[in-house]
Amino acid sequence: MRTTHLWTRTLQHSRTRLFSSTCHRGEVLSIHDLPNRVHPSYAKRSDSKLLSLKWAEEPRNVMIVKKPGVEEIGDALVEFAEHITTTYPGTNIILEPSVAHNFHHRLSRPVYAIPPPSRSSPFPFTQSTDPRTPHQRPRKTSHEQPDTEDEPDHTSFLSEEIQTNPYHQKTDVLVTFGGDGTILHAASLFSTSRAVPPVLSFAMGTLGFLGEFKWAEYKTAYASLRHSCAFEHAEECNIRVLRRNRLQAGVYGVNGERIGGEWGEYEGIEDAHAMNELSLHRGRDPHLAILEIYIGPHLLTEAVADGIIVSTPTGSTAYSLSSGGSILHPSVPSLLLTPICPRSLSFRPLVLPEDAKITLRLSKRNRGREVEVSVDGRRWGGLGPGQEVRVWLETVGNESQEGGIPCVKRLNTPGAEDGWVGGLNGLLKFNYPFGEEE
Amino acid sequence: MRTTHLWTRTLQHSRTRLFSSTCHRGEVLSIHDLPNRVHPSYAKRSDSKLLSLKWAEEPRNVMIVKKPGVEEIGDALVEFAEHITTTYPGTNIILEPSVAHNFHHRLSRPVYAIPPPSRSSPFPFTQSTDPRTPHQRPRKTSHEQPDTEDEPDHTSFLSEEIQTNPYHQKTDVLVTFGGDGTILHAASLFSTSRAVPPVLSFAMGTLGFLGEFKWAEYKTAYASLRHSCAFEHAEECNIRVLRRNRLQAGVYGVNGERIGGEWGEYEGIEDAHAMNELSLHRGRDPHLAILEIYIGPHLLTEAVADGIIVSTPTGSTAYSLSSGGSILHPSVPSLLLTPICPRSLSFRPLVLPEDAKITLRLSKRNRGREVEVSVDGRRWGGLGPGQEVRVWLETVGNESQEGGIPCVKRLNTPGAEDGWVGGLNGLLKFNYPFGEEE
Amino acid sequence: MRTTHLWTRTLQHSRTRLFSSTCHRGEVLSIHDLPNRVHPSYAKRSDSKLLSLKWAEEPRNVMIVKKPGVEEIGDALVEFAEHITTTYPGTNIILEPSVAHNFHHRLSRPVYAIPPPSRSSPFPFTQSTDPRTPHQRPRKTSHEQPDTEDEPDHTSFLSEEIQTNPYHQKTDVLVTFGGDGTILHAASLFSTSRAVPPVLSFAMGTLGFLGEFKWAEYKTAYASLRHSCAFEHAEECNIRVLRRNRLQAGVYGVNGERIGGEWGEYEGIEDAHAMNELSLHRGRDPHLAILEIYIGPHLLTEAVADGIIVSTPTGSTAYSLSSGGSILHPSVPSLLLTPICPRSLSFRPLVLPEDAKITLRLSKRNRGREVEVSVDGRRWGGLGPGQEVRVWLETVGNESQEGGIPCVKRLNTPGAEDGWVGGLNGLLKFNYPFGEEE
Amino acid sequence: MRTTHLWTRTLQHSRTRLFSSTCHRGEVLSIHDLPNRVHPSYAKRSDSKLLSLKWAEEPRNVMIVKKPGVEEIGDALVEFAEHITTTYPGTNIILEPSVAHNFHHRLSRPVYAIPPPSRSSPFPFTQSTDPRTPHQRPRKTSHEQPDTEDEPDHTSFLSEEIQTNPYHQKTDVLVTFGGDGTILHAASLFSTSRAVPPVLSFAMGTLGFLGEFKWAEYKTAYASLRHSCAFEHAEECNIRVLRRNRLQAGVYGVNGERIGGEWGEYEGIEDAHAMNELSLHRGRDPHLAILEIYIGPHLLTEAVADGIIVSTPTGSTAYSLSSGGSILHPSVPSLLLTPICPRSLSFRPLVLPEDAKITLRLSKRNRGREVEVSVDGRRWGGLGPGQEVRVWLETVGNESQEGGIPCVKRLNTPGAEDGWVGGLNGLLKFNYPFGEEE
Ligand SMILES: NC(=O)C1=CN([C@@H]2O[C@H](COP(=O)(O)OP(=O)(O)OC[C@H]3O[C@@H](n4cnc5c(N)ncnc54)[C@H](O)[C@@H]3O)[C@@H](O)[C@H]2O)C=CC1
Ligand SMILES: NC(=O)C1=CN([C@@H]2O[C@H](COP(=O)(O)OP(=O)(O)OC[C@H]3O[C@@H](n4cnc5c(N)ncnc54)[C@H](O)[C@@H]3O)[C@@H](O)[C@H]2O)C=CC1
Ligand SMILES: NC(=O)C1=CN([C@@H]2O[C@H](COP(=O)(O)OP(=O)(O)OC[C@H]3O[C@@H](n4cnc5c(N)ncnc54)[C@H](O)[C@@H]3O)[C@@H](O)[C@H]2O)C=CC1
Ligand SMILES: NC(=O)C1=CN([C@@H]2O[C@H](COP(=O)(O)OP(=O)(O)OC[C@H]3O[C@@H](n4cnc5c(N)ncnc54)[C@H](O)[C@@H]3O)[C@@H](O)[C@H]2O)C=CC1
Repeated sequence: MRTTHLWTRTLQHSRTRLFSSTCHRGEVLSIHDLPNRVHPSYAKRSDSKLLSLKWAEEPRNVMIVKKPGVEEIGDALVEFAEHITTTYPGTNIILEPSVAHNFHHRLSRPVYAIPPPSRSSPFPFTQSTDPRTPHQRPRKTSHEQPDTEDEPDHTSFLSEEIQTNPYHQKTDVLVTFGGDGTILHAASLFSTSRAVPPVLSFAMGTLGFLGEFKWAEYKTAYASLRHSCAFEHAEECNIRVLRRNRLQAGVYGVNGERIGGEWGEYEGIEDAHAMNELSLHRGRDPHLAILEIYIGPHLLTEAVADGIIVSTPTGSTAYSLSSGGSILHPSVPSLLLTPICPRSLSFRPLVLPEDAKITLRLSKRNRGREVEVSVDGRRWGGLGPGQEVRVWLETVGNESQEGGIPCVKRLNTPGAEDGWVGGLNGLLKFNYPFGEEE
Repeated sequence: MRTTHLWTRTLQHSRTRLFSSTCHRGEVLSIHDLPNRVHPSYAKRSDSKLLSLKWAEEPRNVMIVKKPGVEEIGDALVEFAEHITTTYPGTNIILEPSVAHNFHHRLSRPVYAIPPPSRSSPFPFTQSTDPRTPHQRPRKTSHEQPDTEDEPDHTSFLSEEIQTNPYHQKTDVLVTFGGDGTILHAASLFSTSRAVPPVLSFAMGTLGFLGEFKWAEYKTAYASLRHSCAFEHAEECNIRVLRRNRLQAGVYGVNGERIGGEWGEYEGIEDAHAMNELSLHRGRDPHLAILEIYIGPHLLTEAVADGIIVSTPTGSTAYSLSSGGSILHPSVPSLLLTPICPRSLSFRPLVLPEDAKITLRLSKRNRGREVEVSVDGRRWGGLGPGQEVRVWLETVGNESQEGGIPCVKRLNTPGAEDGWVGGLNGLLKFNYPFGEEE
Repeated sequence: MRTTHLWTRTLQHSRTRLFSSTCHRGEVLSIHDLPNRVHPSYAKRSDSKLLSLKWAEEPRNVMIVKKPGVEEIGDALVEFAEHITTTYPGTNIILEPSVAHNFHHRLSRPVYAIPPPSRSSPFPFTQSTDPRTPHQRPRKTSHEQPDTEDEPDHTSFLSEEIQTNPYHQKTDVLVTFGGDGTILHAASLFSTSRAVPPVLSFAMGTLGFLGEFKWAEYKTAYASLRHSCAFEHAEECNIRVLRRNRLQAGVYGVNGERIGGEWGEYEGIEDAHAMNELSLHRGRDPHLAILEIYIGPHLLTEAVADGIIVSTPTGSTAYSLSSGGSILHPSVPSLLLTPICPRSLSFRPLVLPEDAKITLRLSKRNRGREVEVSVDGRRWGGLGPGQEVRVWLETVGNESQEGGIPCVKRLNTPGAEDGWVGGLNGLLKFNYPFGEEE
Repeated sequence: MRTTHLWTRTLQHSRTRLFSSTCHRGEVLSIHDLPNRVHPSYAKRSDSKLLSLKWAEEPRNVMIVKKPGVEEIGDALVEFAEHITTTYPGTNIILEPSVAHNFHHRLSRPVYAIPPPSRSSPFPFTQSTDPRTPHQRPRKTSHEQPDTEDEPDHTSFLSEEIQTNPYHQKTDVLVTFGGDGTILHAASLFSTSRAVPPVLSFAMGTLGFLGEFKWAEYKTAYASLRHSCAFEHAEECNIRVLRRNRLQAGVYGVNGERIGGEWGEYEGIEDAHAMNELSLHRGRDPHLAILEIYIGPHLLTEAVADGIIVSTPTGSTAYSLSSGGSILHPSVPSLLLTPICPRSLSFRPLVLPEDAKITLRLSKRNRGREVEVSVDGRRWGGLGPGQEVRVWLETVGNESQEGGIPCVKRLNTPGAEDGWVGGLNGLLKFNYPFGEEE
């Protein structure tokens, strides 16, 4: 059992340092001290693919994830946190440990974070471990990319905690400040959760494709989400929820056994979930990879290529698009299979039905070489000859809280609700016209 | 009033000629004399997207549509018709008038066809009118393509008959002999019907993408369809039904009024239905067309292009593929929007959700030029500046008989049931490998 | 010898109408009265693919071709003509007949035009015949596109005149006002000439891809061209010449004989020359065309497609680009072969060497259907089954005046001379970045 | 034990060992003992882009490069070597050291190889250094790919030897046994030579795109090459030479200085030459690379992509093709610039003129990440932010021996000489037709 006791003790250690000079205001408390989360319910509307959302109780625990390294975004976080804790008393702020570390002193109220591990050290936040799935890469190998993030946003916790990931247990609302990468990162923190909290995303600076609200709208956006509608009066409500499908994926060994490898050597191994895509790539090896692709039990084809992408419709505007894939509306229930630089003139991108089970196996003909497996632009591990990744679409409960990533959307004008057409034109420069005004 | 009386009289006229020399055997009777059709019911299976099919009563009226001009296919028609009328007494054969005219004398039993119009002439088959939707192009304009078919497969009937199209009223099962073009033609005969009968298609010679059975299988294929399963025992059944979505489309004038034009000037104007696609194309005009594309009420973009395709997933392997579109599994509920030679570097094919309503309007900037509108590779008419086509996906009842084209599929091996993966490889030469054996 | 006599007579007829009210100033004289043209010579520069240009004598006869229907462009023509005739006495202006008809009264000096035919009618300009190659489509067929130009820019002349096309004999410099279409039209007037005069093109309004100078630069641009450099001092010169390769094409019958068809039934049949491309297209026929493509004597492939494009590098940013072709720098000596919507997954665009001889034959399997042949976006005629078009690159003399279209280019900064990189970015929106500023 | 001591002065010592057990037949001699190479001369033919070839003296030194690891190919090497040394007395065989080591005992005559370095170690072949350009990667870094080749085909030699690479000095004819990869490897051995010897390539097993002759033809192919034509009688000659252009590339530091890095820290640093392409790729980093592309001094664009390829026309059917590039005939004088998965809808492949100088600079915005630089599918090194690669086309002397890779081609039938059309169809499955025979 995880006790606050240890944590308190731990914090005392660190507080010695933390509070010595700068920390006159907020303090960092353990996320375990928060009340458990409340789940909203979603309802299908007759007029649209978007859902309306209703809270049984008011949401209190708001997790904020921010893009690192941009000063204005830090300021925005502070302003936002002050606003909601003041305007809606009883609201608690959850931050990633490193962010808590850097910002708690600028906030007038305490913030909550995952505490350092029980075998704590006096320098808790330097023990970087990844709370995402796949969990626990305990040995930092020498191959590893230098971490370019200025704020290490990970902390370690024990493997039994995976089952009871505190973010999953506590977060009512997930707020992001940053671009698409920040949303992908936030989603990755919930990659083993069946019930991701509603995601309210603010684009800071350049608008991203997945983001929705501008910073200037922050007050009304949060207010709308908080008060969102009783189903009877949904018409008056100006937000909606787009439940974005996720991919689910597991890695299997030459004999079909579930394996860990760099994915973790533990019992409680779980599937990865992707918001955009899972990709296999030859990586740094200058030679073509040979991949066998199965749909259900049937060999679709053997791809000789730089790699292969299995994408959600959400991810159709990400890597898959760069590789020549079509653009899909996020509500088309399907999976995309897009080759990366295939050595064939006739390998076209495919769009598969939502119930397709895809297996990507590295052919034994690759003679000892590995391919890189990435999830949403993060390296997951290396896959050896004969090993395989199995990918399918996470099932989404119809009106239950389970499945997908519930993204909060603005409801501007009737019909325009999902803003997708606008995004194509404004962001992707879709069908951008030729010519130049003199 | 349409009566057999008139028809008999009509036939007497023609019999004079028909029976004089060759017609010692079958005769051509009016389709109106047949009992009304029986509808099968369809059931969703837990294990698959394909449906199982059950007849309340045994099917009796079998319409056969064949590719014109190939002798072997004519022989096959005769062999098939003899087989089913002999093996399953009470079975009636429906043919297109010109086919009936050419083949009745080779059959031992009568065949049924749409009779010539009441104001009949002694040369009924020369009064070519098209029983498909859009109906009635009464004035054959000088622009029209010379008919290259060797057997005119149309007959004229009165416009009030549209409501009571005898094919729709009488056909229990639709059998095709030929390639994809023959299936498209057969489907076009039911383009105004909400409840297309099950389609059993035999590929003759080269296999097509939409076809399913080989000629050699004709006896077991028909037997399977006829005896297809009670729902309880569906597992033992070796056929399934893929209900292919159709597009629905109407043409509207500059003021939004429903128009006819070459589509017919009549009251009873109906929507066109497409199995593959609806396309707009500059046709013979060497200049780029300017088209405004709306999704719902929103302007998506202005396309400057050779044309634009709105396709079903079924049609994703047809014209859309040639224009750079992705390949979609036919059961992905969606619409494809694929540009034809767009004058933009950044106009990618789109896949829209099943409830998208698309409007294609010819911009007034086209200065008097028309674009050609085609449905499933058949010219529908010309669209003038300011006029528009509205396209959407036909709704398909869940387990009702309504909507889509129920295509009979072989059930080979578990999981391989829909043969799509095989078709990609065998027919489209998908990801065809490089290199050559020495 | 073509005499002014007839022409004078003709003009008297029309003057009755023309001069009655508005025509107090310039008059329209016969182009045949002009002195013959002077040819510039071109020299290869060590530092660049662009040529420098030198006049032995000063150019006097300036032909101006303008885009029809835009008032400002008419005003620009008047201003330009007044400027050069005033500033450089002895300069003569040549106009297309209809333009001469509409603008002569606004000019203070006479203009020169091709006179109406000797068997003149009182309504000369209504006898529309096309002075371009292919010449003479004497019977306006009922299929023909309504002419949307507001100023018919054609006049008729006898077929023996083809050999001695007065534009080719008289024009020292060709100036265009308008977009790419205007340059293509101007080039088409010289399509049978081996020695096209230097082309100075002014983009009016929206910049085109082939245009070079802005209207505001007209004085310095013309001055630079006129005084362009003695070879010794070429460094000081601020214009250069890009000699754009043209395609040459002829049509041949089933037995390999040179044919006319709609291309003219006359003896003096000549090859067409294209600045952009020659294309074959199914046109209005909704069925795929089957085309055999030969490179030299070898069958390359049989294309089943909407059509096929043979393009110059100049045309690589025109129709070929829309059909998926690569972008080529205009000085890469080559031919592009780009399919239009091919029914194959593996038909990639090809770039062939400059000496490739391409034959496009309509397969006899097209069963009586024709394909449309177009040159630079103008319909050339219909090609029947078994007939063929042969296409190759016009040979260009190294430093002689012969071959290609000498386009005058600005020489801004060293290295930037040909402006191609700028055009890709500014006009084609090449690699246009994603994202949107908030 | 193999020592340089033994090896010194024609391997006298090693013979002791070599001959002790297995070596009863051929011996390994130093390549330095061979007479210097003789250069053929090439002549342009009026009828073709291909050259004819003439030897002043008969070629004697034949270098054979083979694909490792396939037993049949080893047997073929033995058979070929025996044939030419027997049939053409005075012919000498040069092999790569590891191949010499493995095969000399199967040959009846001595073979020549590069001797181990003078400061020899007792284990010379383990001191793997690469005689290719870029030379000398003396420290085997821990990142390096495990060598999957079964025969290490490198030996070390001193850097001063680079200037006087013995392969370049001695090889009259270069023969390859294997696929395209073997030809690329053989070419890489001459990557710093301005005068690559004629390459005679035999495809073993599956035909490659660059290969030319089948194994069965080996006698006549070599005979034809050896006796190839006096220019007067070139018509009777049945081989020709296609001189394939190479790329030349150098790496430069942030301040424009020529750098080494993994490319070698030595004075005598040389450019890399590529037969197919030079590519930059994000490699294993899951994030997009940002690359600035200059053409001459002008910024073409900033590519945000997986990478970028600069390819020769020969390489247009290799990696560039997989990335969406057009197919170019190898004799089109040009460079291809093809993006790999660009994050833009409008980044089309470009074809640049032969004199284009391309600079690829890693933007400083990549924040410390490197991109991988590869040449012909071999890793060359990593490029850091602000560093750049400069690439251009090697100049090829008109009729001199200098420049390009002279590939020997069969001359079958007039016009078909270069076999390119056949290769497109047979190997690339260009425009492979749909459909399946029943
Ligand atoms: N060649 C390519 O296009 C590559 C693309 N990626 C994509 O990057 C994603 C990771 O994003 P970051 O961590 O921000 O990496 P990053 O910093 O490399 O940026 C990726 C870019 O993709 C955009 N993006 C991400 N998801 C998107 C979506 N669903 N629709 C439209 N645009 C989207 C982001 O705004 C950003 O501009 C991966 O999921 C993958 O899709 C990753 C590697 C290569
Ligand atoms: N450039 C192109 O690719 C063009 C394609 N078409 C297609 O032709 C269809 C009409 O077919 P036909 O009357 O037989 O004309 P057709 O005789 O011109 O043949 C069209 C070809 O498309 C194939 N096809 C038809 N539907 C298909 C599907 N759903 N999936 C895969 N292949 C399919 C047929 O087997 C045939 O090979 C149209 O619906 C349109 O999709 C029509 C015009 C141009
Ligand atoms: N789907 C397409 O992209 C089609 C393109 N065309 C092109 O149109 C040309 C005829 O031009 P217009 O008479 O003005 O017809 P148009 O009024 O249909 O306009 C064609 C467009 O192409 C542009 N253009 C022409 N030549 C170009 C070049 N070399 N590089 C870049 N852009 C170029 C023009 O500026 C104009 O925007 C033809 O030569 C053909 O290349 C013609 C038919 C269809
Ligand atoms: N995604 C892709 O298509 C990739 C392609 N490559 C290519 O592989 C080449 C190196 O070849 P290997 O060492 O054999 O590596 P490899 O074993 O990875 O095979 C590359 C394939 O490309 C073929 N190939 C090579 N050059 C060719 C050419 N000029 N035209 C047509 N086919 C060609 C080979 O026959 C082989 O099938 C590189 O120069 C690069 O062009 C390298 C990496 C990725």
